[in-house]
Amino acid sequence: MDIATAAGVVIAIVLILASIVLGGGNLMAFLDPASVMVVVGGAIAATLISFPLQNFLSVFGVSMKVLMWKVEKPAALIEQLVALAETARKEGLLALEGRLGEIENDFVKLGVQMAVDGTRPEVMEDILRTEIDAVATRHRDGKALLDCMGRFAPAFGMIGTLMGLIIMLGDMSDPSKIGAGMAVALLTTLYGAVASNVVFLPFAEKLGYTNKQELLAMDIVVRGVMAIQAGENPRVIEQKLNTFIPPKLRAKQAEEAAP
Amino acid sequence: MDIATAAGVVIAIVLILASIVLGGGNLMAFLDPASVMVVVGGAIAATLISFPLQNFLSVFGVSMKVLMWKVEKPAALIEQLVALAETARKEGLLALEGRLGEIENDFVKLGVQMAVDGTRPEVMEDILRTEIDAVATRHRDGKALLDCMGRFAPAFGMIGTLMGLIIMLGDMSDPSKIGAGMAVALLTTLYGAVASNVVFLPFAEKLGYTNKQELLAMDIVVRGVMAIQAGENPRVIEQKLNTFIPPKLRAKQAEEAAP
Amino acid sequence: MDIATAAGVVIAIVLILASIVLGGGNLMAFLDPASVMVVVGGAIAATLISFPLQNFLSVFGVSMKVLMWKVEKPAALIEQLVALAETARKEGLLALEGRLGEIENDFVKLGVQMAVDGTRPEVMEDILRTEIDAVATRHRDGKALLDCMGRFAPAFGMIGTLMGLIIMLGDMSDPSKIGAGMAVALLTTLYGAVASNVVFLPFAEKLGYTNKQELLAMDIVVRGVMAIQAGENPRVIEQKLNTFIPPKLRAKQAEEAAP
Amino acid sequence: MDIATAAGVVIAIVLILASIVLGGGNLMAFLDPASVMVVVGGAIAATLISFPLQNFLSVFGVSMKVLMWKVEKPAALIEQLVALAETARKEGLLALEGRLGEIENDFVKLGVQMAVDGTRPEVMEDILRTEIDAVATRHRDGKALLDCMGRFAPAFGMIGTLMGLIIMLGDMSDPSKIGAGMAVALLTTLYGAVASNVVFLPFAEKLGYTNKQELLAMDIVVRGVMAIQAGENPRVIEQKLNTFIPPKLRAKQAEEAAP
Amino acid sequence: MDIATAAGVVIAIVLILASIVLGGGNLMAFLDPASVMVVVGGAIAATLISFPLQNFLSVFGVSMKVLMWKVEKPAALIEQLVALAETARKEGLLALEGRLGEIENDFVKLGVQMAVDGTRPEVMEDILRTEIDAVATRHRDGKALLDCMGRFAPAFGMIGTLMGLIIMLGDMSDPSKIGAGMAVALLTTLYGAVASNVVFLPFAEKLGYTNKQELLAMDIVVRGVMAIQAGENPRVIEQKLNTFIPPKLRAKQAEEAAP
Repeated sequence: MDIATAAGVVIAIVLILASIVLGGGNLMAFLDPASVMVVVGGAIAATLISFPLQNFLSVFGVSMKVLMWKVEKPAALIEQLVALAETARKEGLLALEGRLGEIENDFVKLGVQMAVDGTRPEVMEDILRTEIDAVATRHRDGKALLDCMGRFAPAFGMIGTLMGLIIMLGDMSDPSKIGAGMAVALLTTLYGAVASNVVFLPFAEKLGYTNKQELLAMDIVVRGVMAIQAGENPRVIEQKLNTFIPPKLRAKQAEEAAP
Repeated sequence: MDIATAAGVVIAIVLILASIVLGGGNLMAFLDPASVMVVVGGAIAATLISFPLQNFLSVFGVSMKVLMWKVEKPAALIEQLVALAETARKEGLLALEGRLGEIENDFVKLGVQMAVDGTRPEVMEDILRTEIDAVATRHRDGKALLDCMGRFAPAFGMIGTLMGLIIMLGDMSDPSKIGAGMAVALLTTLYGAVASNVVFLPFAEKLGYTNKQELLAMDIVVRGVMAIQAGENPRVIEQKLNTFIPPKLRAKQAEEAAP
Repeated sequence: MDIATAAGVVIAIVLILASIVLGGGNLMAFLDPASVMVVVGGAIAATLISFPLQNFLSVFGVSMKVLMWKVEKPAALIEQLVALAETARKEGLLALEGRLGEIENDFVKLGVQMAVDGTRPEVMEDILRTEIDAVATRHRDGKALLDCMGRFAPAFGMIGTLMGLIIMLGDMSDPSKIGAGMAVALLTTLYGAVASNVVFLPFAEKLGYTNKQELLAMDIVVRGVMAIQAGENPRVIEQKLNTFIPPKLRAKQAEEAAP
Repeated sequence: MDIATAAGVVIAIVLILASIVLGGGNLMAFLDPASVMVVVGGAIAATLISFPLQNFLSVFGVSMKVLMWKVEKPAALIEQLVALAETARKEGLLALEGRLGEIENDFVKLGVQMAVDGTRPEVMEDILRTEIDAVATRHRDGKALLDCMGRFAPAFGMIGTLMGLIIMLGDMSDPSKIGAGMAVALLTTLYGAVASNVVFLPFAEKLGYTNKQELLAMDIVVRGVMAIQAGENPRVIEQKLNTFIPPKLRAKQAEEAAP
Repeated sequence: MDIATAAGVVIAIVLILASIVLGGGNLMAFLDPASVMVVVGGAIAATLISFPLQNFLSVFGVSMKVLMWKVEKPAALIEQLVALAETARKEGLLALEGRLGEIENDFVKLGVQMAVDGTRPEVMEDILRTEIDAVATRHRDGKALLDCMGRFAPAFGMIGTLMGLIIMLGDMSDPSKIGAGMAVALLTTLYGAVASNVVFLPFAEKLGYTNKQELLAMDIVVRGVMAIQAGENPRVIEQKLNTFIPPKLRAKQAEEAAP
């Protein structure tokens, strides 16, 4: 799991709880199931209206997978592709079949499998690019959905506070209860702000970032696999793929590769 | 009907009503026809000024049709187009006339009819593309109108609250009525927030999403019908159209299609 | 006059007045010339600083003309252009001179006049396109100015309320006057919200919409007039121009036109 | 000086002062040097951090020059360029040297000087275009800086109000001072709103507008000077340059120019 | 160090402290470690969730380096490149090796080193462009991160204030403590506004600006080094590179360079 995500969530929660205790507050007074229901339930309901059910259900899976999955470092990926290219060059494309088991990355595996099967290059690139588009669309939809929840959560927080205030203002016979009523009314605004700023918006931001990294990695794989199938020189493949990443991150310097 | 939309609307309403009752509020106190009038009427009036009457009237129809109409799955559409291509290949273009009755999708029907009538390809593509543009414009205008209502509803909620506050502040002779006056004043802000976040904004969002799906489906139809008219090989048509959708959603794998 | 614009303005005003009366308010208490002065005057002053005087003065004319002028239906325009093309085809370009009197649309008249005068095609298209650009610029500037007023009006509403609150807070010797002071202070915020949401923003929105329609119509005219001058077949002209509008709105179906 | 800018600033100030007096306020109570210091000083400090010192210092000069300088009317500019072209045509390029003294516009002078000096066309166009880019960059940077101040001023207004409220709330021993304390606290928000809406945002808007006009004028000059150097026919030059401006604003109609 | 950045930060802090003292406030009352913790800690936590740990850690270094590093003036850079070109022209490319020690700019050094090593032009341009992309990505990521903190800081300021208000409202048994409780509650909003408007947003703005300047300088270096390797005439190189900067900033006028 990405350590920063975990650390961020833990730090935010600890900070909020600590600051309530330090401020002399009672943690229990900050827990109100009906308020949680309005804010989280309302944001979910509005999101259900905004997106097809299938997108809504898949976003949790996509988010979790993307947030926890460590995107493969481009340099490692290039090293692996170059190793496969060397095998293909020395022992022929079919020799790659024996190495399929070593490949962990599903997308590399799909590409190599098709190369081994003798799929025509145009068809192969077509299938790989369509797969990239599908991943990009899934991530974009996931980010849009999280951004939406990040906007709806504070809105339902405000709706909850307005309802609480109207109830409180409608019955002010006992002035001593006004403070408590307002405190409860403000809880939904607090929940909406926390849900939006600790969960939805940061997760949407990281999903967008991880997406860019994954698409870059997939693009490198497509170019690498196509070059392997075309039987290109492993050195040339390495040099070509290395132009996608900054010199410092490269496994081997391009200069050495240049004759 | 799209189950998520229905579920979302029902959940949102139940949540809001339940939270009023749980919060000790009186549901009747939350109902004020004059406030509904200001918020909904005001948002409608501002939208009437912003758009031509015709757009305003058509948005309800368009929204309902789009929200309730289940967009045809691209895979099913491709399967149908391939079947039609097989018929045309084996029995000739004119044989498609006998199958027009089976076609439910109006856009496929329009295209096949023109192919049967021997309309020239350029004219045919022209007419189909113009139809796509018309659908895209209608949906874009519909989304713009709903987004507009989503912005005007909270604005008129605030206008209503300001009017309520001014009336209340102008006559504070009876302090016991201040709370009730403020409660009523806040109702319009609540109505505006609910109308915007439960109805207008989520509906606009889904209209935008459905629009993208429908345009993709229509694009597949145009390419399929044009290929049928040109007498292309059904296998090639299938492979071509499948590049528009991710491998997992394809009816038949492109690999099998490749010889 | 566009019925929706008029209806919207009337409905909004009636709704606001009715809701004041229904809420038990005194209409006179909502009228404060000094507040109107700050909000409307301030928005006008800020807009005067933002734009050249000439743009400011012309926006009223442009808005009125555009809002009240019914944009010619593209279908009627195409029918007229095709009729002119038929005359030119049968009786020669010069015969169009006799029909100039029947043409109401100034832009069509300008084009036909130049065709009759034997203006070279490049010069003619150049002049017509420059005219379109000038209309587009005028409308874009007009929309920008109205959008600006829609942003400045609430800002000066807030400025007025802040001034009212500061005056009220500075002299709280008579507590019974606090309510009235605050009521007056809030009036400017109310005025700013109403001016922005009932007038400036909806008018800017419609100006943008009408602009798109007018530019489409002008584009059709340019293509039609150029084709007439080139002596093209009226049927071909009709078919070409019809591709700009959805099939349902076409005067005659393109299919019939196709031989 | 542009009359609208001056009028707007004067009207806004008079309106604000008048509305304070009409509202029964004491003008002196609205003057608080410490509040001016926080809002204006804070906005300047934040802008100093955001931009290089040089940009900050030049913005006043640029703004003043642009706001007060009447952009030359394109029609007058074209007329002058055509007159220069006639001289060059009749008496040769070198004859333009004698007319350099009459040219007020520095950019026209730079172009004509280079034409007289026999600078090669590519070098000449290069230098003139680089000058246009430099002007565009200077104006864009100036507008960005004013927009920034327009955002920072209200932010520091809110910071000042928060500080005032915290001071006031920290010492409520004398309830009679609460109103006065809050009034002073609100002053910074008022200052921020006025500075932003009367000065920074409108000036940024006009700078953007004037920039577009000036770039259009400079573009006309480049094309005109290049055509003069190339020895083109003055009539053709006029016709070419006129396509940049709407027919109504042209000095002479293009039709007359057409043979 | 960039004098404007330092001056801006010092001015902002002095202004805020001075205005507290002038307003009769107690500086100590404005210091609350728990509030600092919620706002700064919360903004950091949310940013940790939003970005990979590595980006978060590098942003401080990048910001500091960029904010304090005086971007080399393009004119000085061009002068240096022309001097190197003269050496290469007179004494051959290899003679540049002896001058490597004089070059301070790492990017120029990298380019010249490769030219001396006889790296092929395509490979050389490729490596230099990839380096530029890496710098641009690093700065863009840094700016995005600072912008994010600029949005999260006020959000956690509001979260802190809501928690403070709820604690205060929950225990109003001692009315004399209400003011103090509210004062503490408002502190987090103040901290959030100050952190965002004095640190995060202005630093993000300047990072964006410096980035543009640095990329322009790097672009000039690439073109210069490539031209040196190609053995172009130093005068021609100078003239070519000078087109990137406005005439006033050029070391020598292009006119002089033109024969």
